[in-house]
Amino acid sequence: MQFVASEHPHRRLNPLNGQWVLVCPHRTQRPWSGQQEKAQKNDLPEFDPTNPLCPGVTRPNGIQTPEYESTYVFENDFPALVEVVPVPPNSDDPLFQIAPARGNCRVMCFHPKSNLTLPTMSAAEIVVVIDEWISQFNELSAKYAWVQIFENKGAAMGCSNPHPHCQIWSCSFLPTEPQLKQERLRAYYATNERPMLADYVERELQRQERIVIENRDWVVVVPFWATWPFETMLISRNNNKRINDLTAEQRYNLALTMKELTTKYDNLFQCSFPYSMGWHGAPTGPEHAHASSAHWTLHAIYYPPLLRSASVRKFMVGFELLAMAQRDLTPEQAAQKLREVDGKCHYLEK
Amino acid sequence: MQFVASEHPHRRLNPLNGQWVLVCPHRTQRPWSGQQEKAQKNDLPEFDPTNPLCPGVTRPNGIQTPEYESTYVFENDFPALVEVVPVPPNSDDPLFQIAPARGNCRVMCFHPKSNLTLPTMSAAEIVVVIDEWISQFNELSAKYAWVQIFENKGAAMGCSNPHPHCQIWSCSFLPTEPQLKQERLRAYYATNERPMLADYVERELQRQERIVIENRDWVVVVPFWATWPFETMLISRNNNKRINDLTAEQRYNLALTMKELTTKYDNLFQCSFPYSMGWHGAPTGPEHAHASSAHWTLHAIYYPPLLRSASVRKFMVGFELLAMAQRDLTPEQAAQKLREVDGKCHYLEK
Ligand SMILES: O=P(O)(O)O[C@H]1O[C@H](CO)[C@@H](O)[C@H](O)[C@H]1O
Ligand SMILES: O=P(O)(O)O[C@H]1O[C@H](CO)[C@@H](O)[C@H](O)[C@H]1O
Repeated sequence: MQFVASEHPHRRLNPLNGQWVLVCPHRTQRPWSGQQEKAQKNDLPEFDPTNPLCPGVTRPNGIQTPEYESTYVFENDFPALVEVVPVPPNSDDPLFQIAPARGNCRVMCFHPKSNLTLPTMSAAEIVVVIDEWISQFNELSAKYAWVQIFENKGAAMGCSNPHPHCQIWSCSFLPTEPQLKQERLRAYYATNERPMLADYVERELQRQERIVIENRDWVVVVPFWATWPFETMLISRNNNKRINDLTAEQRYNLALTMKELTTKYDNLFQCSFPYSMGWHGAPTGPEHAHASSAHWTLHAIYYPPLLRSASVRKFMVGFELLAMAQRDLTPEQAAQKLREVDGKCHYLEK
Repeated sequence: MQFVASEHPHRRLNPLNGQWVLVCPHRTQRPWSGQQEKAQKNDLPEFDPTNPLCPGVTRPNGIQTPEYESTYVFENDFPALVEVVPVPPNSDDPLFQIAPARGNCRVMCFHPKSNLTLPTMSAAEIVVVIDEWISQFNELSAKYAWVQIFENKGAAMGCSNPHPHCQIWSCSFLPTEPQLKQERLRAYYATNERPMLADYVERELQRQERIVIENRDWVVVVPFWATWPFETMLISRNNNKRINDLTAEQRYNLALTMKELTTKYDNLFQCSFPYSMGWHGAPTGPEHAHASSAHWTLHAIYYPPLLRSASVRKFMVGFELLAMAQRDLTPEQAAQKLREVDGKCHYLEK
């Protein structure tokens, strides 16, 4: 019998963290009688006087959100990380290792209207979001080793507020994923004298089977090692290292690319597609300011949980928590579906 | 200012996988307006003629589930892993690494009645479950490098069937988590000439602050590096290496310990507490049969998602997916709550 990736269970290596993913294509056929997600409603009002992210509303801590007109950034009222915090005592016991964690957490509203999302915003409005990301990054990266810009979208992703927004958590240290990536990208560069993701994009463009969107500045691909069903990477084609080295044109093309990708996502199951997404680029802060970033390539990662419909998601549980990541359709099958679905016209506009 | 673990954000190292966890104790206070879990109903019938796991019911593939009276094991109708599968071609490209995956997937019903769960079963009935785990393990471990016994419980954990059951996935290879653990335990043993978890249990018993249950054969502890809010490890105190080297007394005490722990879980938020749990022990199969397992200690891990009530869970999203694991209350706080809650009488019996 000949091996066929779309039929036979196999494993694939994620070269960015060194971990294998179990791919089980034939499992997509199993019947589902488990939890159904509530599809995100499309009937939100533009303005909700009880939503603290809306312009003019008073937050639980008594501070009033201003009457903002484009984006609005504020410090999280319940931050996971704070700037000033005592350092834990040193321990020489390898089983009880504790380390300091300083940082800060901000919330950034994308738009004053609660009933918009990135795919239903205009490209010009998305450029404003990108510009605000960059101005936040400029400020925070001067101080912190890692600035994690991320968006949790949809109740299925634990997003506690439907208003279009993201978060920015800055850390005095490199968190696990960026640390692993830093090591792997550096090792690849040492051997190949090329950024790993530049080589990767080049080979994916030759093969085409996992490409979702390509334009002059950006490529969207379902990575060969994708874990979540419709996971994608949005990768710079211009050897960008960090989000703040994008030119005006690259930013405009990024807005178009993000709009197209998220429109495809929404159209796939005709719902406001939930996901967590975020940006990875070269580390920052005083510690990394003078280190080489030659091995890095700026990219965003989208982790959407939906598997088969607006109401059936993939759960990373049991085997996944105890043993390893596992997926039910191949990255090639996911890429084909995302390629075929309309990325220009959002289903709500049809 | 003095560092206080229950107040100040910090990081802790998981010595079993080498990854840090961000601990943010002050975040438990934030208001929650996001997704509410449906608490598992307690009104299931003993027998549901539409549930394929019930005795006598015909499964979608036409096979009839027998009229079983204790446990019942069958091959998963939609297995992630299969025994005979072609080997993928070798690739010398580090960015497109693919590897074989053989194995099998079984489903094991704990009891004929749909409306029971481990905490509401008798200790004698739980011993029957443990004995069946062992007989399955005996058979499967002869052939496979890793036999993952795991239970997904509750809709919040993606469990698609409320009938009390677990799964057993066997693999021709060591999955990510066991592989990391194998390396770390081995390195610790090489330095200390003691199994890491034996040392760990000893020190936790001295400190007491993270201990939930202890008896002659077993300890339940919220690990110093716990990620999920009420995560626990149930660890053998007898230098057991694998589940099939337990004596009859150790098995009986295990049943009592599992019943006590899951009763505490259910009583904590007065609901059928969702979790994923599973067993880790020394690797198996022809490959590992003659290797030393001196560095291993048999243990189960419980990963429950609930955070603050039956309806508010922890989401591992955004920052957690892109950067690192993060928790909102300290392991010591979780252990204290679990210690204080009744483990003898289930809230449904009160
Ligand atoms: O086999 P089940 O219970 O339908 O499926 C559940 O457990 C599996 C193993 O942990 C996971 O891969 C699935 O995502 C989850 O929904
Ligand atoms: O801050 P939020 O949106 O309320 O919270 C959400 O995002 C955080 C960062 O990814 C997670 O730690 C929380 O578990 C999640 O519920």
